[in-house]
Amino acid sequence: MTDALNKFRNKYPRQGLIFYKMDVANKNGLEAAYSEIFKNFGSIDIVVNIAGMFNELDVMRTITVNLGGVINSTLAAMKYMGVENDGKGGIIANMSSVVGLDPNFMMPTYCATKHGIVGFTRSLSDEFYWKKTGIKFVTLCVGVTITPMLTNFPEKLLYSEMEEGSYRLLELADKQSASDVSKCIMSILEKCENGEVFIVENKKFFPIKMDSYWKMNKGGK
Amino acid sequence: MTDALNKFRNKYPRQGLIFYKMDVANKNGLEAAYSEIFKNFGSIDIVVNIAGMFNELDVMRTITVNLGGVINSTLAAMKYMGVENDGKGGIIANMSSVVGLDPNFMMPTYCATKHGIVGFTRSLSDEFYWKKTGIKFVTLCVGVTITPMLTNFPEKLLYSEMEEGSYRLLELADKQSASDVSKCIMSILEKCENGEVFIVENKKFFPIKMDSYWKMNKGGK
Repeated sequence: MTDALNKFRNKYPRQGLIFYKMDVANKNGLEAAYSEIFKNFGSIDIVVNIAGMFNELDVMRTITVNLGGVINSTLAAMKYMGVENDGKGGIIANMSSVVGLDPNFMMPTYCATKHGIVGFTRSLSDEFYWKKTGIKFVTLCVGVTITPMLTNFPEKLLYSEMEEGSYRLLELADKQSASDVSKCIMSILEKCENGEVFIVENKKFFPIKMDSYWKMNKGGK
Repeated sequence: MTDALNKFRNKYPRQGLIFYKMDVANKNGLEAAYSEIFKNFGSIDIVVNIAGMFNELDVMRTITVNLGGVINSTLAAMKYMGVENDGKGGIIANMSSVVGLDPNFMMPTYCATKHGIVGFTRSLSDEFYWKKTGIKFVTLCVGVTITPMLTNFPEKLLYSEMEEGSYRLLELADKQSASDVSKCIMSILEKCENGEVFIVENKKFFPIKMDSYWKMNKGGK
């Protein structure tokens, strides 16, 4: 990671670049990192929560990293970014997945955490938070992307019989690199509106409209 | 709880009734309880995962209990119920919420866990698991219900300003008792089909059709 950081520092000598290693599932450590970042830069404008893992055989770690990490980081960032705390508002973009929208038999627990990120982020895009914080909340539902998450994929499935099918599906799916996804995210950050949910797939992105299944019958907002 | 158990034992003297106290977020303890239950009854036919909590100020406990508990319990139960392990199949019904379907500004973390339960349970209703286990997986999206979860509700919100609005919404919503919900669940268990998602609200229940937002473009099942 130091190599990557040096490369960026050489390329963008006038930018302040800092790298922190942290466990997003550890709320206290994460809050300390935000405090450090704030001290160094004086303000926080954009947060993109991307950290995630895949292992259907380690349920607790998957939910505390994927879902707990995004929630911890979002709530910590809001304290510095929110206009009610003398912040400047900004954007918090949370990384979900296309399996955060639809079920997927190969990855029920991963799918659960990604559904959770959609529900959490959309909840925060309510007018209540917008008025209070001036932060736009955006959900990124990313398709199959070539990352280390796919390493030893079959060993992290619930049943070994899924292995063959998983390879076939991964092979057939439209794939993209992490760099492709980053480019899409940069474009999204430039023009997103509060509450938007984007599919980022096959090197392209587009917002989707999500249905409402329930309205509190009489108390509806 | 012993009182309630004795009441049921008196009312149904020919039924075997056992009560276990457990922390659903504790995978090992939960698996030990399933092992005990199996030893006592010889088979497990129906599991209804209901344990949940509400506290937006305790993110990790909320996600490990609400989401981790349901996942742990479902995966543990499948080992005993699945026909591939000489089980008899059956039904696993997981308790989500109406806020597992739509966002809700008052409860972003709770909402996240309940979205997760929808994604998890629907993922398991895939034909792959049906063929393997003979278990029907059903999601219960329950509306406002008068339970101890609502005790000190305003103290468990992210912002104290939500208090007034939360009271207003709770007052206006169609409410039901835990007993009303139980009756609905009993009816659902009698006639549910694998993969169904039910709204249980205002003492009534009905299945909903959920939209598909994404299909893996070429590999689609």
